[in-house]
Amino acid sequence: MKTLIYASSLECEIAFYRAFDSADLAAMMAVWSEEDDIVCIHPGGPRLAGIEAVRESWRQIFASANGLRVRPGQPLVTSTLQTAIHTLHENLSAPGESRPFVPMIATNVYLRTERGWRLQLHHASPAPDHPPAGEPADAGQPPVLH
Amino acid sequence: MKTLIYASSLECEIAFYRAFDSADLAAMMAVWSEEDDIVCIHPGGPRLAGIEAVRESWRQIFASANGLRVRPGQPLVTSTLQTAIHTLHENLSAPGESRPFVPMIATNVYLRTERGWRLQLHHASPAPDHPPAGEPADAGQPPVLH
Repeated sequence: MKTLIYASSLECEIAFYRAFDSADLAAMMAVWSEEDDIVCIHPGGPRLAGIEAVRESWRQIFASANGLRVRPGQPLVTSTLQTAIHTLHENLSAPGESRPFVPMIATNVYLRTERGWRLQLHHASPAPDHPPAGEPADAGQPPVLH
Repeated sequence: MKTLIYASSLECEIAFYRAFDSADLAAMMAVWSEEDDIVCIHPGGPRLAGIEAVRESWRQIFASANGLRVRPGQPLVTSTLQTAIHTLHENLSAPGESRPFVPMIATNVYLRTERGWRLQLHHASPAPDHPPAGEPADAGQPPVLH
């Protein structure tokens, strides 16, 4: 898997969510930078730093969350030559959950490395319910605390 | 306030938390990039995009959260020439809260602009309680969901 080259941050992001949605640990780790300063923050979880901690967290998620599905959407992207900052919505769904989906907001930061674009940081956290499709961007709602 | 130049992402981050801690809206907005693609995600809140939405959110926080204090710590930083990716812990405290502080994890992304380093993205979300001081980095705890 390590020979894959992502020509853009968008390609890398598509591969990230495909790996997530299909619970494919090898494909998941192939999208991450191979530097040991990668950071992953799962919703409600601690900050995980380094390849081993990040890999172990996804291994546990894929092992325990049978049938967990993810649908990303509404990306906003800011790029420089070497970095791409993406924010987007994630809809998570899992068998047995009372809600049809759980809305999350994610920040994904990608770096252009010698081996193409790779994921450097993933930070996901619970979001309020999405506005209906076609509504203006989800701005202006007062935050709960800070 | 707009004439301030931050020579590093760390300087900009110090100014961000000083403005936050002192509920100074002008100082807060001076640390942000002046581009309209800035993004701010408060804990549990929606994704806010653009200067007006971000400014209004901080105005509301500063107006309503009287005595809210923030203490940042444990930064991890990855930098390129134009971008700096910071993750850190935030301890929030407010009068009337049952807990002495509420732990958060924040991702702050800074860009080097023509006017020095500026904040491009702030994403904060609830964290589990911190490990005791002196413990190894807070890695390895299983995430709750994803």
